[in-house]
Amino acid sequence: MPSPRSTPTVTVNRARLEARIEELGRIGVHPEGGLDRGVYDDSWTEAMELVAGWLSGAGLKVRRDAVGNLFGRLEGYASDRVIMTGSHIDTVPQGGAYDGGLGVQAAVEAVVSIAEQLGPQPTALEVFVCAEEEGSRWPCDFWGARALVGSIGADEPHELLALDGSEITIADGMRRHGLDPELIPTAARDDIDVFVELHIEQGRVLEDAGQQIGIVHTINGKVHLEAVIEGRSDHAGGTPMGLRHDALAAGADIALRVEALAKRLGDPAVATVGSLVPRPGAINVIAHRCELTIDARHPDPVQLTALQDGIHSLLAEVAQDRSVEVSVVREARHEPQPMDAQVTSVLTEAAAARNGRPPLLMVSGAGHDSQIISQHVPTGMIFVPSVDGLSHTPHEYTRIEDSVAGVEVLVDALLSLARGRQ
Amino acid sequence: MPSPRSTPTVTVNRARLEARIEELGRIGVHPEGGLDRGVYDDSWTEAMELVAGWLSGAGLKVRRDAVGNLFGRLEGYASDRVIMTGSHIDTVPQGGAYDGGLGVQAAVEAVVSIAEQLGPQPTALEVFVCAEEEGSRWPCDFWGARALVGSIGADEPHELLALDGSEITIADGMRRHGLDPELIPTAARDDIDVFVELHIEQGRVLEDAGQQIGIVHTINGKVHLEAVIEGRSDHAGGTPMGLRHDALAAGADIALRVEALAKRLGDPAVATVGSLVPRPGAINVIAHRCELTIDARHPDPVQLTALQDGIHSLLAEVAQDRSVEVSVVREARHEPQPMDAQVTSVLTEAAAARNGRPPLLMVSGAGHDSQIISQHVPTGMIFVPSVDGLSHTPHEYTRIEDSVAGVEVLVDALLSLARGRQ
Repeated sequence: MPSPRSTPTVTVNRARLEARIEELGRIGVHPEGGLDRGVYDDSWTEAMELVAGWLSGAGLKVRRDAVGNLFGRLEGYASDRVIMTGSHIDTVPQGGAYDGGLGVQAAVEAVVSIAEQLGPQPTALEVFVCAEEEGSRWPCDFWGARALVGSIGADEPHELLALDGSEITIADGMRRHGLDPELIPTAARDDIDVFVELHIEQGRVLEDAGQQIGIVHTINGKVHLEAVIEGRSDHAGGTPMGLRHDALAAGADIALRVEALAKRLGDPAVATVGSLVPRPGAINVIAHRCELTIDARHPDPVQLTALQDGIHSLLAEVAQDRSVEVSVVREARHEPQPMDAQVTSVLTEAAAARNGRPPLLMVSGAGHDSQIISQHVPTGMIFVPSVDGLSHTPHEYTRIEDSVAGVEVLVDALLSLARGRQ
Repeated sequence: MPSPRSTPTVTVNRARLEARIEELGRIGVHPEGGLDRGVYDDSWTEAMELVAGWLSGAGLKVRRDAVGNLFGRLEGYASDRVIMTGSHIDTVPQGGAYDGGLGVQAAVEAVVSIAEQLGPQPTALEVFVCAEEEGSRWPCDFWGARALVGSIGADEPHELLALDGSEITIADGMRRHGLDPELIPTAARDDIDVFVELHIEQGRVLEDAGQQIGIVHTINGKVHLEAVIEGRSDHAGGTPMGLRHDALAAGADIALRVEALAKRLGDPAVATVGSLVPRPGAINVIAHRCELTIDARHPDPVQLTALQDGIHSLLAEVAQDRSVEVSVVREARHEPQPMDAQVTSVLTEAAAARNGRPPLLMVSGAGHDSQIISQHVPTGMIFVPSVDGLSHTPHEYTRIEDSVAGVEVLVDALLSLARGRQ
């Protein structure tokens, strides 16, 4: 593989990048702040149309697959194999414009700049605009990436119910968008040589280290769990404290024990109760039911298991201590995922060459499309700093100079990979 | 005042009472179980129409006041003064058919039975179907009773916003129902000599004591409080435990400290967090905001103050411990309310005479219309048992034989009061 220093220099269009970040960030604005782009909803469709326009406007070959993933391709002159880069376009509820969005922008800017300034490379370059990653509208996390690698189960589209309680399956959502759930297997690709994703860090590690570029060596493992507590509704005024089966208090107890468990295991263990819904949810009624979610992460599979086991234990303890029923209604585990060593090395060299200092090699606390794709394709990740570590909030922000630096590293790495793999 | 033993016997129509409890209990059924009758909604209107039909069908004089309270009057032959009995027709969300509903049924059955079997009494007897007590649709607790005694503020109808977040004031709700908020002061009455309310206990005290009838000497004091926690949204995967400002965890902490405070004060102190709403409420996002309600009760005003002070202290402690902002956005205190000694004595004698044993003199853990009315009119309350103490749940139930026993005591007490007060 040639050194990145030997590749021709491509200039990133900072003004265009900045304008497009702003333009995409206006799609899906929530009335209470932030962006809501759930897969297959109207704002998602609008965002996809906007990016498709950028890709076709630059002369790239635009294509959509069976789940709505969007691709923009610069054909290779020597090979049909593909070097792919991209990220997701959906957001968490009231999320920001950079999580996923900046990776899409970086992929577009990098491939378009190469197309404009150098033209075709030996292998094809493709922008990947991933349809879905967050699991915000359906609990379908990594939907786009899983379609790309062919790991969506045949029954899954018909079983996943919308999180808003509307009883709509993701298959219904696809059909309303003109997509046929039966065709999902056709989205699987076997022509990708390398995948590279640029993403915001969503933490404070780069900022604390004074670094503009991080290269990810491992993505955190993650356990996602949904629990339901069944207690008993009683009148809040007429029921002595000792006779209660309070599902909300049990939910609160679980939330604090989950927090204590992660603190006891110590950094980098994290665990979060992000959603907690008591029923009936009235001021003078003891809740009879409480639904909650748990998100627990660790980059070490053994420690992740310790977290997972600890959660199951504390759920059982709360059930016993408070005479309520606690059931786990959904549980998913994503193993810690190492990135490809060779791709990581190319990214590290490209970053060092552009910036004159080695980038920070780091763990990703958050999950990413790359953790799915890397199970099938050699994959690497570039991190750029999140101001104040903010993410999954309307205040999520990455400085334009950091974004440009990230795109520059991505450009150089794509060229190096496209030429090294011919 | 003559002894209840000297009053003529009136027979309560058990079959009619049972049929009407069932008929009213079919109005406002929630798809997930229980009844939803919020003031001025369609099911509330239907329920009011049904009871109005029963009253006019029995030849009582039917009237509605400015807030929609419904009255059925048997004129007195010697005086225009009124002995009034009744309860409320609205429910908590997914509530039961007996809280309020049984007091309405008992009032109808008692006055109708007297009208049918004895005809007019010296003073007028009135059934009071109270429009609103629960504060379920607007935070307007005791709306009907407060209108009756003239204690609704002039601005209140225009300031109370619906709890569903729809920005509709209760004044809007009234107007949609054909009522003019400016006329609320005309609902105030000064012709009532005595008010008696029959209600389900909503606790297990009568059941544990093997008693069919309780006579309330004091209604619990109550503090209702709404708090908002402002923390910071961060990514659940990328934010170390020590750097979080987790509004949901702070809410959970408050819920458990509120519970611990009531337990520390000991019975009969009770305190409940019944509603807790984290934002954005997503599995992989640390909540930036959490709204919660606190309901705290005690029959002793000094201990109620200790509860209230304790709540304010723990809110401040959680704010400090967790670096979040906690603000109290609404706080209302209802003082413990003793019932009228003379009315309580008449009720106690009537119960002893019918059952051959003295009833249980007790505290009401829950709040009732009587606590408002008793501030202006001599008032007493009859309790009948709640099976398993259940209330504010679809499973709320009172046995028909206990209901009949309660109506019998109510009939005898009304006759005694109507004759004693001429």
